[in-house]
Amino acid sequence: MNSFKPTTRTKLKRMVERGEYDRGMVYRILDEGFVCHVGLIIDGQPYVIPTGYGRAGDSLYIHGSAASRLLRSMAGGIPVCVTVTLVDGLVLARSAFHHSINYRSVVIFGTATIVADFREKMMALQTFTEHIIPGRWAEVREPNEQELKATTVLVLALEEVSAKIRSGPPKDDPEDQELPVWAGELPLRVEAKEPVNDPNLRPGITPPFYTLNYSRKEK
Amino acid sequence: MNSFKPTTRTKLKRMVERGEYDRGMVYRILDEGFVCHVGLIIDGQPYVIPTGYGRAGDSLYIHGSAASRLLRSMAGGIPVCVTVTLVDGLVLARSAFHHSINYRSVVIFGTATIVADFREKMMALQTFTEHIIPGRWAEVREPNEQELKATTVLVLALEEVSAKIRSGPPKDDPEDQELPVWAGELPLRVEAKEPVNDPNLRPGITPPFYTLNYSRKEK
Repeated sequence: MNSFKPTTRTKLKRMVERGEYDRGMVYRILDEGFVCHVGLIIDGQPYVIPTGYGRAGDSLYIHGSAASRLLRSMAGGIPVCVTVTLVDGLVLARSAFHHSINYRSVVIFGTATIVADFREKMMALQTFTEHIIPGRWAEVREPNEQELKATTVLVLALEEVSAKIRSGPPKDDPEDQELPVWAGELPLRVEAKEPVNDPNLRPGITPPFYTLNYSRKEK
Repeated sequence: MNSFKPTTRTKLKRMVERGEYDRGMVYRILDEGFVCHVGLIIDGQPYVIPTGYGRAGDSLYIHGSAASRLLRSMAGGIPVCVTVTLVDGLVLARSAFHHSINYRSVVIFGTATIVADFREKMMALQTFTEHIIPGRWAEVREPNEQELKATTVLVLALEEVSAKIRSGPPKDDPEDQELPVWAGELPLRVEAKEPVNDPNLRPGITPPFYTLNYSRKEK
């Protein structure tokens, strides 16, 4: 299916024109980002934890990080909300009221479960590494059994998903258009700087190609 | 008080060395970011909503956005977790296992309440605009009464707060140091591009100074 079906949780109530359910569009946003915010409930209190992720097909793999102990104790999985947000720019209107941010965000609802199988876990870690920096996995030492055990990976099906997008210029009221105030967009981009060698780097090893033209944008 | 007191919710259980409770350090992170992820519970389900924010003293002001209707219906406020994450770079180790991300994040627990008073609301919106782009508020048309009514602003006291920071090179195991693999850090920065004029911009108006050297880093 090429579109996500809106549910009561993913259907927008406001700014309906910003809603987006096309799977291709959603996946382009997920593939450009690499840090998500995982929302979960512990003792009736919401927690929001930033962590890395990777996508493989219709699954999202998440590093367990701080939530791992909690999650491991829950056999049946835990309801989560995972949000990925890309900030594209500031929208500067002539009126304070119409200032905005251009962004693309994806919200995923579902039940995160622990990846227990070693082969799936290895595959998930490869997805994870390649998602963050394509080309890296083939060069590094693969996780050994002990490391696999020490790593918590969660998987979440991409089923109940929506995106929200704002782009373009500000939308001032007609009566403000003549104000002597600059209006427009200030684009923001995430850019990579020069790679920094590890202080213990063996002599003669130079930064690999994939660190030199690194960009999150689709090529 | 110059340090936040760790609570059961903000005390780190793992990677204790990454925890940070210094108020100045926390506020520098909050002041560099401008998009937060607000976690809240609706019908037992966690929601994570990205939105803009601004800080004034020991208060965080949040744009209500999608949550506004829900929040307006709750007289006594709503427990939230607000997380701000700045990504500083990719940490590339010789082993897949020790790959990481350099980041600075702040997690705030508390009860968000609606700002109802018009004067405080106006002040909050000024804080909000100046937080995102300093110098802008003085130039734009201020919100009128109708716009103030249509805007939901939430305030959250900065009391139960912690930061988490990872910086520096990868930490490979001693036996991996001799592998013929490049290791180091790939720094990532948010950068502003050329401002884009609104298509309806009046002739003769040029982008203001604060759009030309825009940076989230402290000057």
